[in-house]
Amino acid sequence: SGSMWLYRWYYSNACQRALNFTIFLILALAFIETPSSFTRTADVRYRSLRWEPPCGLTEAVEGLCLLVFMADVTVKCYLVGRAQFQKNVWLLAYITVLAVSVVDWTVSLGLLCQEPLRVRRLLRPFFLLQNSSMMKKTLKCIRWSLPEMASVGLLLLIHLCLFTVLGVLLFTGEVQDEQQRKERLTYFRDLLEAFTSLLVLLTTANNPDVMMPAYSKNRAYAIFFIVFTLIGSLFLMNLLTAIIYNQFRGYLMKSLQTSLFRRRLGIRAAYEVLCSMTGAGAPQAVGVMPQDFLQVLQKAQLGSSHKQAIMQKVRSFDETLLSADEFQKVFREVDRGVIIEHPPRPWYPSPFLQSAQFLVGHHYFDYLGNLIALGNLVSICVFLVLDEDVEPRDRDDFVLEVLNCAFVLYYLLELLLKVFALGLQGYLSYPSNLFDGLLTSVLLVLEVATLAVYRFPHRGWKPEARGLLSMWDMTRLVNMLIVLRFLRIIPSMKLVAVAASTILVLIRNLRAFGGILVVVYYVFAILGINLFRGTIVAPGNSSLALTNGSVHCGSFEQLEYWANNFDDFAAALITLWNVMVVNNWQVFLDAYRRYAGRWSQIYFVSWWLVSSVIWVNLFLALLLENFLHRWDPRSHEQPLSGTHV
Amino acid sequence: SGSMWLYRWYYSNACQRALNFTIFLILALAFIETPSSFTRTADVRYRSLRWEPPCGLTEAVEGLCLLVFMADVTVKCYLVGRAQFQKNVWLLAYITVLAVSVVDWTVSLGLLCQEPLRVRRLLRPFFLLQNSSMMKKTLKCIRWSLPEMASVGLLLLIHLCLFTVLGVLLFTGEVQDEQQRKERLTYFRDLLEAFTSLLVLLTTANNPDVMMPAYSKNRAYAIFFIVFTLIGSLFLMNLLTAIIYNQFRGYLMKSLQTSLFRRRLGIRAAYEVLCSMTGAGAPQAVGVMPQDFLQVLQKAQLGSSHKQAIMQKVRSFDETLLSADEFQKVFREVDRGVIIEHPPRPWYPSPFLQSAQFLVGHHYFDYLGNLIALGNLVSICVFLVLDEDVEPRDRDDFVLEVLNCAFVLYYLLELLLKVFALGLQGYLSYPSNLFDGLLTSVLLVLEVATLAVYRFPHRGWKPEARGLLSMWDMTRLVNMLIVLRFLRIIPSMKLVAVAASTILVLIRNLRAFGGILVVVYYVFAILGINLFRGTIVAPGNSSLALTNGSVHCGSFEQLEYWANNFDDFAAALITLWNVMVVNNWQVFLDAYRRYAGRWSQIYFVSWWLVSSVIWVNLFLALLLENFLHRWDPRSHEQPLSGTHV
Repeated sequence: SGSMWLYRWYYSNACQRALNFTIFLILALAFIETPSSFTRTADVRYRSLRWEPPCGLTEAVEGLCLLVFMADVTVKCYLVGRAQFQKNVWLLAYITVLAVSVVDWTVSLGLLCQEPLRVRRLLRPFFLLQNSSMMKKTLKCIRWSLPEMASVGLLLLIHLCLFTVLGVLLFTGEVQDEQQRKERLTYFRDLLEAFTSLLVLLTTANNPDVMMPAYSKNRAYAIFFIVFTLIGSLFLMNLLTAIIYNQFRGYLMKSLQTSLFRRRLGIRAAYEVLCSMTGAGAPQAVGVMPQDFLQVLQKAQLGSSHKQAIMQKVRSFDETLLSADEFQKVFREVDRGVIIEHPPRPWYPSPFLQSAQFLVGHHYFDYLGNLIALGNLVSICVFLVLDEDVEPRDRDDFVLEVLNCAFVLYYLLELLLKVFALGLQGYLSYPSNLFDGLLTSVLLVLEVATLAVYRFPHRGWKPEARGLLSMWDMTRLVNMLIVLRFLRIIPSMKLVAVAASTILVLIRNLRAFGGILVVVYYVFAILGINLFRGTIVAPGNSSLALTNGSVHCGSFEQLEYWANNFDDFAAALITLWNVMVVNNWQVFLDAYRRYAGRWSQIYFVSWWLVSSVIWVNLFLALLLENFLHRWDPRSHEQPLSGTHV
Repeated sequence: SGSMWLYRWYYSNACQRALNFTIFLILALAFIETPSSFTRTADVRYRSLRWEPPCGLTEAVEGLCLLVFMADVTVKCYLVGRAQFQKNVWLLAYITVLAVSVVDWTVSLGLLCQEPLRVRRLLRPFFLLQNSSMMKKTLKCIRWSLPEMASVGLLLLIHLCLFTVLGVLLFTGEVQDEQQRKERLTYFRDLLEAFTSLLVLLTTANNPDVMMPAYSKNRAYAIFFIVFTLIGSLFLMNLLTAIIYNQFRGYLMKSLQTSLFRRRLGIRAAYEVLCSMTGAGAPQAVGVMPQDFLQVLQKAQLGSSHKQAIMQKVRSFDETLLSADEFQKVFREVDRGVIIEHPPRPWYPSPFLQSAQFLVGHHYFDYLGNLIALGNLVSICVFLVLDEDVEPRDRDDFVLEVLNCAFVLYYLLELLLKVFALGLQGYLSYPSNLFDGLLTSVLLVLEVATLAVYRFPHRGWKPEARGLLSMWDMTRLVNMLIVLRFLRIIPSMKLVAVAASTILVLIRNLRAFGGILVVVYYVFAILGINLFRGTIVAPGNSSLALTNGSVHCGSFEQLEYWANNFDDFAAALITLWNVMVVNNWQVFLDAYRRYAGRWSQIYFVSWWLVSSVIWVNLFLALLLENFLHRWDPRSHEQPLSGTHV
């Protein structure tokens, strides 16, 4: 019973939340540790000296986190038991990672934080990974699809190599022409250069450029590039998507089924236990006494609405014993979606108030509100168009400010009327009202603050900046909030609302994938910091960087990508994002090859493979899976067929 | 029986092929008509004066084509019958299009080909469309998914508009800084400009650039752009993919099922007819006489191997009547895949020849051939690497030429040995051998020609160019063919071979989609020629084009995209392809806005919507459908369940 207590305590909400917070904390340390991300900009030209945490600060937090993890691993080992423990690879890896981290932490403290390499920073994402069963499952799924992906990858490699050799042979003929010479010198100078050009063309990031010099010479050369893109980008890359989707198809379904199966098994076990307790005296009448059931139910952790529904059902059995089948059926309630019941509207005695309540409660009133919000948006747009050539300091905001005041007053009125019609409880039970009300109150506070600081608006009203925000910034903030408030119209359009709700459901289901993305980003960012920290040097400070006059178009320097570096964690994340989006990534390849060396291309290409090829396809696969599951009419008729135990 | 004869004649292979050729011919006219595509390059700077066909040449061909179509439509109307004819929208449209084309053609001849607009060129793709039932079906499928796509499109539009207003509000604060000013002036000058910037960002074509100035000022601004891309590019765009896939899921399956159903129905009808013919005398024994069956079968159009198999089956029934069930079963043979039987190997009396035959026929001999091909590829690569800094005219090709001669001799030996081992018939029955043999003979001819013209190679061997191709071009051509010959290794790697064969099957299934792509490209190219012909003017000839010194980086002029114009049909196709690939399409938007006016953006954005958004997603959907159908283990167990009549 001691271990039972430990088990319950360990899987209690509070304990799990504490563990999650610890994981979040140790991951967030990367922003604070040397090199910290606390500068206004990441641009090497304008970056101020960064604040560095004193030695021991982050290490103390990290030490605490590691202590929590040690407690966690001890409890887990105890709960799993010796026999299971030796088979559990994840648990063994957890202990190893923890040991390495502690050793590295000790070394770090011993060297007074001057150590050149921190291995434990690379290992941190493991703590996130091992704590989520969904992420482990997803990893397994990815591992299963690796062989098929490797086959397409090999095909892709053959495709690339063949076209590289063909391209080099094609574009190194007798140089009769300036254009052909240019093609050769820019994109097909040697095999490696040609391979890189075509690899980038596979992502279409240098599409018209790479074909332009040759195509300008002769139309027929375009065929080479179009055939390459057709086979590579359209066929082979999409085949990768298909393979990943094939692996993940039914993934959601399967995981739903297994969790349902486990629950059914648990219910059946509970029935057997309760049965043996009551049925000891009368062996011929097998079943569960409703009173026993209710007693147990009181202590069980369940959503209150579900608990209420189950209790009501059980009470209807009176004194008769529940059979196994009935026992299972009672728990079907848990599978049902929760229907939020809105509290009843307040009743007003006066007929005038009653009709007012009817008017406000009618959905035409909502439409009116939407129309007013649209009007407000249009008025802001009109002023933006009118003022577009005027410098911000010369703008006369009198009319706009008066209009905004009027609109905010209307929003306030709408809020009050709705509270009057639905009651405060009823008003808050709608999420859309919550969103509306929150924004309206923030808007009200901002407007009142503006009026308090800058007085009533009048013509030619150009107050100086006072306090935290200038008048102009206040207005801008108000306007932005109004624009956001306009989102309330989405639920009014049925098809759009369905699409929007699909996305919201998707985001909830995507946590495991988000976790894997965090892990991948974290590892690559830390790696990038270790490899490339300080390689990008501000122009003028470096002999490598060309002077401003001679930079050629399309280079890192001309495009002023100075902020895309690996000098701290936040900057590294943004740089990785920009490479993941793939557009213009050849600029990064080129710049880091010049600044850091040719080997840096391996880092960027592997990041492209992991993020853009695997992760984006994974995302698409999950989106398709979720979407088809949701919109498929069959899935609603028999939501989880074949899982009824 | 006259109409029966007409029906058979109309649907005969010869007649249908003639019709298809006519369609191809009328579509291909676009390359020849004024402005013809017969120039070496499409680049406005280097383009020579184009050859223009004399008035009446293309018109005569077109007139002949129109006559064929008129005959076609008459036969179709007669075969369909009056009742069906009035309901058949496609047929009515066919007649209308034909009438308009004829009128336009007459006007064109009347004005001696000087007419400003040719409506019939826009209408030509209709002839392709109406001739393919698959394409009509696909169009119907697209039309069904339009409402759902419109809902996501609306969501996308709201997303774009909100972020446009937010962006303009965000980046027009008090100008404290050069960077923020730059962001405002470059990408967020006014609402329309901001909308365009964000629309381009939705396709990620200006990804790091658009965020750089603001991000250089403050890290936090990156969040605005990342959130925009996340919602727009990852969620909403992929939702479009999911919607289209959802609509096309089971599309292939359904079309297979209906064609199978029709065939079964036809077989059943044939049974009934044959039954009534034989069963007239003996009503108690209902069935088909095998002799009657065989007689009918002789005249039926069927693949010869299938016919053989069915005949064999029918003969096994001897004189007993075939019941309906047996009759159906006999036709199952048609569903079976054709197994190509290789002819038996020739038999040689001498034991030495027999063992030689065994050695050459063994698959290790194929591996040896692959190895040699790989060695040849490696030798070419080695020489490319060695010679990469040498100008082509200074290269010494002696060793490479000798090596190539040796390799080609080996290939010839391999070919002869295989013919010896398998017999000529047996050798040709493998498609891989066909591919090999063809390339080997071409290589042999080239080598012999080289030796005949330039004599045997020796050190310092640098012959002058003689005849059609220079020595160097000959070598290049040989090398390229050798590289292509290397593709024979693909079938040796099992997983790669599966992926490759999936793609080959896919290409066969994609004809309908290819047809729709042709239609879309054709219509947009003709539109583009009418709208933008001559707007791009070579630098120096135009007052609009900036002089070479002052072009700014990333502009149409600096990138030298001069060949991307709409001055003739072939050039228009390549330009549309480059916009479809999406990368750098903002350059086109910007250039055509400057040269032709703001309205040109509508053309490019609608092309982006049609090609990149709808067609590429359609392609992905079909690829997924085909792929899952092929790799799904269930689809092999019961290939077409539920369709057995």
